[in-house]
Amino acid sequence: MVGYGPYLDLIDDLIVGKERVSSGMRRELDRAHAAVQAAEAGRLVAVVSSGDAGVYGMAGLVLEVLPEGSPVEVEIVPGVTAASAAAACLGAPLMNDFAVVSLSDLLTPLDVIERRVQAAVDGDFVLALYNPRGRRRVEPLRRTLASLRACRPAGTPVGLVRNALRDDQHTSVTTLSELREEDVDMLTVVIVGNRSTMLRDGRMITPRGYPVEAAESAAEPS
Amino acid sequence: MVGYGPYLDLIDDLIVGKERVSSGMRRELDRAHAAVQAAEAGRLVAVVSSGDAGVYGMAGLVLEVLPEGSPVEVEIVPGVTAASAAAACLGAPLMNDFAVVSLSDLLTPLDVIERRVQAAVDGDFVLALYNPRGRRRVEPLRRTLASLRACRPAGTPVGLVRNALRDDQHTSVTTLSELREEDVDMLTVVIVGNRSTMLRDGRMITPRGYPVEAAESAAEPS
Repeated sequence: MVGYGPYLDLIDDLIVGKERVSSGMRRELDRAHAAVQAAEAGRLVAVVSSGDAGVYGMAGLVLEVLPEGSPVEVEIVPGVTAASAAAACLGAPLMNDFAVVSLSDLLTPLDVIERRVQAAVDGDFVLALYNPRGRRRVEPLRRTLASLRACRPAGTPVGLVRNALRDDQHTSVTTLSELREEDVDMLTVVIVGNRSTMLRDGRMITPRGYPVEAAESAAEPS
Repeated sequence: MVGYGPYLDLIDDLIVGKERVSSGMRRELDRAHAAVQAAEAGRLVAVVSSGDAGVYGMAGLVLEVLPEGSPVEVEIVPGVTAASAAAACLGAPLMNDFAVVSLSDLLTPLDVIERRVQAAVDGDFVLALYNPRGRRRVEPLRRTLASLRACRPAGTPVGLVRNALRDDQHTSVTTLSELREEDVDMLTVVIVGNRSTMLRDGRMITPRGYPVEAAESAAEPS
């Protein structure tokens, strides 16, 4: 079982008696190498990510590290990515086209992040922001909010979900103008509505486009 | 149990003895009303979607139909959306920022779809296309491919997954220039790589940005 220590701890009861190889944050490359090395030595290895391993997770890194033509078989098991988990906590903000952007500039240059955010704003995508703010990494969020505030109405709903679907989950809903940088941290997923997203009874809803009002009287539930 | 008939059939063994309310395709609004009506009458209701109910699924529609201030409690259970499922079948194409766009113009005007696709292309997003082609609905896919072919290299990897993670799953990988419209249908999810996505051993990989080559010799798997 290869993974970031705290993630392995989360599935403690599922991996009793299994050998564990854990390493700290930012040691992803080491973990990928450890997993491939053990698999090439004939071991049955599981690499654990949080959310969906295929979305900013370990799946790609393991495939990148795996030598071309390696006989090791890799099965990727998809999961519930943080955008889906956070959306479920907030209501249904992802009912229409959406873009997922990581604001971490550790691996992606800030100008690329900025260009992507602007493109998502231009396309009126609902926007799910991963890694929105680090302790010393505030600039990407600041620029993102500036782009959004220049192009979307002040009342655009914004949802913040910290530790989605974990014990210490915290959910809040605000608007683009009222969102405060300090309310966002590294463990928060931020979902910004598009021009149609509304707030109702505290929930974010992005209409899919069905003629809900018109059909209400005509509907014949069977 | 409220759902599209074939989806309820997929979970037949899980809902033995439960009352079923099913209706055909394009009767989503009826199902949402039926669910809310039964819940308001005091019944415990589960509405079933495929993939993630919060991504182009029934979650938003149920919330839209629910009268404001209704005492009905709604819990939304997130799932593995088709983009995640398809990505896992293809390798790891969603390891960097991505956009999800439905090409169905039943509920979204074609010019909005076109603008979104162009924005996603401009932002160099990996692109996941839902409902890419209907029997009589070819124009959105045609325009999408034209935008992509005008802006991304001919060799950009494209993955097609039909019935992801179901019994009759079919996966294929091609390139932007070689993709044929006829190979895409309504049940296919299309994933188009960004400018960094590569093909290796038949798998699509979008690098996350780790210095894989440089670190390979320095890595010390623990």
